[in-house]
Amino acid sequence: VTIPLNGRVESGRRRTSGAPGPERHGLTADVAGAPGTARIAVDLLGGDQAPAVVVDGALRACLADPSLHLLLVGPAEAAETISDALADPSRVSVLPIDGGTETARAAVRAVAHHRADAVVSAGDTGTLVLAAAPALGRRPGVRRPPLAAVLPSAAGPIVLLDVGSSVDPDAQTLAMHALLGAAYASVVHGIEAPRVGLLTIGTERGKGDRLRRAAPELFERLAPVAGARYVGLVEGNDVVTGGVADVVVTDGFTGNVLLKGLETAYALVGAPGPATPGPRAAALLGIGGTVVVCHGSARGVDIAAGIALAASLHRRGAVPVIDQLIQGTEKPRVQEVVHEQ
Amino acid sequence: VTIPLNGRVESGRRRTSGAPGPERHGLTADVAGAPGTARIAVDLLGGDQAPAVVVDGALRACLADPSLHLLLVGPAEAAETISDALADPSRVSVLPIDGGTETARAAVRAVAHHRADAVVSAGDTGTLVLAAAPALGRRPGVRRPPLAAVLPSAAGPIVLLDVGSSVDPDAQTLAMHALLGAAYASVVHGIEAPRVGLLTIGTERGKGDRLRRAAPELFERLAPVAGARYVGLVEGNDVVTGGVADVVVTDGFTGNVLLKGLETAYALVGAPGPATPGPRAAALLGIGGTVVVCHGSARGVDIAAGIALAASLHRRGAVPVIDQLIQGTEKPRVQEVVHEQ
Repeated sequence: VTIPLNGRVESGRRRTSGAPGPERHGLTADVAGAPGTARIAVDLLGGDQAPAVVVDGALRACLADPSLHLLLVGPAEAAETISDALADPSRVSVLPIDGGTETARAAVRAVAHHRADAVVSAGDTGTLVLAAAPALGRRPGVRRPPLAAVLPSAAGPIVLLDVGSSVDPDAQTLAMHALLGAAYASVVHGIEAPRVGLLTIGTERGKGDRLRRAAPELFERLAPVAGARYVGLVEGNDVVTGGVADVVVTDGFTGNVLLKGLETAYALVGAPGPATPGPRAAALLGIGGTVVVCHGSARGVDIAAGIALAASLHRRGAVPVIDQLIQGTEKPRVQEVVHEQ
Repeated sequence: VTIPLNGRVESGRRRTSGAPGPERHGLTADVAGAPGTARIAVDLLGGDQAPAVVVDGALRACLADPSLHLLLVGPAEAAETISDALADPSRVSVLPIDGGTETARAAVRAVAHHRADAVVSAGDTGTLVLAAAPALGRRPGVRRPPLAAVLPSAAGPIVLLDVGSSVDPDAQTLAMHALLGAAYASVVHGIEAPRVGLLTIGTERGKGDRLRRAAPELFERLAPVAGARYVGLVEGNDVVTGGVADVVVTDGFTGNVLLKGLETAYALVGAPGPATPGPRAAALLGIGGTVVVCHGSARGVDIAAGIALAASLHRRGAVPVIDQLIQGTEKPRVQEVVHEQ
């Protein structure tokens, strides 16, 4: 069995390869239109400058990807601005909601009810995580679904998690995040045996806080389950230079602070390495659906990149593939990798 | 009473102004040579590439600052390399020690015994902190002396602390660090009423982990003691863009990760703002002496910058001025600020 790790999946290809497509999980049960269509529920009221930047981002995303269908969740007027601007207004549908944080919850429910394949929101992360976990289902062993971001480094992209969902986690939670992050790196970067590092503040044994001293033993035991390799302790500089780990695991507090610091630095003075910066959006892992979270200060291009990430994750069957990887029932075999975003 | 916040203190000026000079604290009891002389104890064996880079750094520092006197702590051969290269070999003296981590402790003792005005080491931070606190004396209320680093931002320099000394601190410790950081910003950046921010992961009320939810009340109550102003919660991006806070307070784990990430990013792709990056060295606060810690991977220029920082802190009487500021017995009045480094 070969899991397709390539980007956009062609019609029939996933079935031919025998890999589990998202349709088996009921997420694309009623896809309308051409094969490869991705139906993304977009939270029109999420973010500091919603709905203006979300409208802008949704339009950009539609222009860039002809196979995209958007379920716009929020005020009808904002949704109409989008459909009015599209050559084919049938590419968007509307779930009219006026109330503040209700849009994120409704967008999640749309995925749970198979009306959309994925959800994108720049709203409050906590609200989204609290809505998504029960509605889409937490995977066994996942207490708090982690948010995984991709950062550029001088040696290539790095998956950093958790970047804001879990504060005060325990060692078991960190180890579960290590598994999920490794599986995510396999899917999005086509890495066969991802190197997993634990972020700390000094690589000598005994360094770090209580949490970091307790975690390595669990990491060593669990990482091989997902075909990953625990490479030990890494430091803040390793997230910038890269080359040591493909996946860097930390608690949601430290990860969020580091992500926001580095993202802002890269936006201001340029990113390291040849790669362009990632989509400035993070994927929620360990749940039964595709959820992408954009920063509250996201601009239109960031929202568009978040929508593109959600569509890409859906098309490559990220959720079911990650499910298999963390259960150890499948090892990734890389066929072809398309670097999107 | 006016505390001199200007850079190098001229002979007699400190006395004339009535401010407490370091001589009152017994740290410069036996200064040899011209006024303004700074006697820095240098740990020759601290750092990943010691003693080679320390020898290089010590030489660079001596060439840049004619009023510098170095007490070289470590192998006699390494010390001789330095004295041989100097036009005036009497500018260095040697405390010969061959053993590994003993050099840091001996350098600290040299300050405690008034044989040097300050100590610079690129050795293990934990060892240095554990040696310095009892030997030089912790200030009342200081449990774990914090390390304060200065980072460039688009809007000017920011004092970030703690960057690696205190892991798993409580809210009282963070609040004490806020006071110390504010006093440090007054001394090194000549800021009259430093704005103090608490680093967290979302500025809405109730965001962050247990520690961050408990700290703001204490910050509000304590910051005014040092003439500082608590400006509330800040995020990782604020450390890069600046303009929100002059002092950013966090635990030693998060601070270390963020510092190493940003320092490496700035070294790789350039620093934000017009300012040149800081000395990549951190000052240990809340103790009765001047201690500067360089990164273990410090190069010669970094060691030289650390020595220059130590000399500058000594010359502007940082320790006694900070003591007064955190006790609320003196408010800073800025006369003239010399930006060194």
